[in-house]
Amino acid sequence: MYSVEELQGIVNAEIKNRSEGLKKLNPANLYRPVEYSIEIGGKRLRPVLLLLSYNLFSEDIKNALPSAIAIEVFHNFTLLHDDIMDNAEVRRNQPTVHKKFDENSAILSGDAMAFLAYKFILENKSERLVDVIELFSKTAIEVCEGQQFDMDFEKRLDVSESEYLEMIRLKTAVLLACSLKAGALLANAGTEIANKLYNFGINLGLAFQLQDDLLDSFGDQKKFGKRIGGDILANKKTYLLIKTLEAATGTDKTNLLNWIKKENFIEEEKISAIKNIYNQLNIINIIQQKIDFYFHESCKILQEVSIEENKKQPLLILCNQMLKRNY
Amino acid sequence: MYSVEELQGIVNAEIKNRSEGLKKLNPANLYRPVEYSIEIGGKRLRPVLLLLSYNLFSEDIKNALPSAIAIEVFHNFTLLHDDIMDNAEVRRNQPTVHKKFDENSAILSGDAMAFLAYKFILENKSERLVDVIELFSKTAIEVCEGQQFDMDFEKRLDVSESEYLEMIRLKTAVLLACSLKAGALLANAGTEIANKLYNFGINLGLAFQLQDDLLDSFGDQKKFGKRIGGDILANKKTYLLIKTLEAATGTDKTNLLNWIKKENFIEEEKISAIKNIYNQLNIINIIQQKIDFYFHESCKILQEVSIEENKKQPLLILCNQMLKRNY
Repeated sequence: MYSVEELQGIVNAEIKNRSEGLKKLNPANLYRPVEYSIEIGGKRLRPVLLLLSYNLFSEDIKNALPSAIAIEVFHNFTLLHDDIMDNAEVRRNQPTVHKKFDENSAILSGDAMAFLAYKFILENKSERLVDVIELFSKTAIEVCEGQQFDMDFEKRLDVSESEYLEMIRLKTAVLLACSLKAGALLANAGTEIANKLYNFGINLGLAFQLQDDLLDSFGDQKKFGKRIGGDILANKKTYLLIKTLEAATGTDKTNLLNWIKKENFIEEEKISAIKNIYNQLNIINIIQQKIDFYFHESCKILQEVSIEENKKQPLLILCNQMLKRNY
Repeated sequence: MYSVEELQGIVNAEIKNRSEGLKKLNPANLYRPVEYSIEIGGKRLRPVLLLLSYNLFSEDIKNALPSAIAIEVFHNFTLLHDDIMDNAEVRRNQPTVHKKFDENSAILSGDAMAFLAYKFILENKSERLVDVIELFSKTAIEVCEGQQFDMDFEKRLDVSESEYLEMIRLKTAVLLACSLKAGALLANAGTEIANKLYNFGINLGLAFQLQDDLLDSFGDQKKFGKRIGGDILANKKTYLLIKTLEAATGTDKTNLLNWIKKENFIEEEKISAIKNIYNQLNIINIIQQKIDFYFHESCKILQEVSIEENKKQPLLILCNQMLKRNY
């Protein structure tokens, strides 16, 4: 049984290895942004989730490694294209790909990463390969839908809580769920258990994205790796803002709507003003309760997975790590 | 045995049908550009090639239809992203997707189309499905490589003929070849015959792209569907320009290099000046010989395919149509 740290090490070593392979490929202007994007790092959550799930059923994790890397490559592709669309300058404390290279390279290298992900999945000759490719393709389309909803919501003031939750399910949760289910499929686990792991991932993903919303406004920039307050500046309809729009009355409400409409402002002033309103309305508490709710849901589902409890420990350790980032 | 026109009709009907399906999907801002992009039309060459190839071995073309549509969706995805990168305003006499909608929608809808293509391929449960997905993924990566080479070459003056031919092999020919080979695989044809059809497609694709270069400068705008002279304005290293750079001497050469370097100019003047140099050096004749060479190569390869000659007729008719566009 592998620990989370061991799997992170294995994933990072394999990414380094594949990145070396990419260095030999031409045209350089296509493959250098790909290497840059996948080498920058991050916690490698998705490939580790895939391997943890596979490891519930099988010790021979080498079999699942190409698919694990594929999911990480896909995830980095979405970040790369999202950063163009959001005009973001920094990701993981480094310049984003379209700033480091240029926008055309970022678009095209991202495209190549989408297909590289399939190429990597295809290295595994499991009997469930077609199921994995189907799951991955469905998930990829859902992630695009989630990103579009997120962009649409920036221009709306009437986004409901349920619309928001559906958006983050698509944008974030389905890829975590896909990683877990793909691990189970590659290990040839039964459909019922694979679907339980998928649902576990959905709930974990919802908790994780809610926490990401919280950290985007109240995190520590160095640990978070992105500018604090980015969501506030973009008028992103995060859970924080949606609950605040619901709860605010009187001058708080007027104040909030004015900041959202304002076109010329000092960025730090807007961030600070809106965070003040969040604080006054105790919104951190409300979002924390929601995070806890989905986290407990995910734990309940994992308990139902009929596998010895000790085998589930690494997965539980990772979940706890995911949801205890400092702020 | 189906005729080219019948297959074009079948493909267009199926695209209309699938486009109706997309209309029901949300978010609208993701799926409307997809519909727009695939409905605009064009000659549907790639799906028709796939079906023609399949029809060499089997009459039951319904089996191959989802994969045929997938290749057309993929092709339209590449046009969509290429148009952003080239900042093109018109495609098939219509506004390009990023002009009709906006750039973010064009990026994200393009991404969704890449994954929709896989979703469509996966509808076919042929025993060679994994082979088709592998071929398609390899081809998609090559198309990205070709597009990057094309952009790289815009900034260089020393692109050789062989570099150019490799670029158009990747950018254009491999997708035609993939369509033909995929048709054969889906019909469960032997590997040797599938590879022959692939090579037939490569040669056909080279001839086709060379002709596209010719039409970009000397075509009829209405029939061509794009602005005439776009390649000249972008300093694209087309076969015309590469052979002209090789052949030009004295004032022709100075003149040519000055136009390439010039940053401020009246567009129609540049187009007309460079076309004059092409005409003086009889470049149309040189490119026409090259087109004929690859066309005859492709015919030779098709002759080697061990199938009754009458079955190959529709394929030969399409090739002739492809290479007899008026200019």
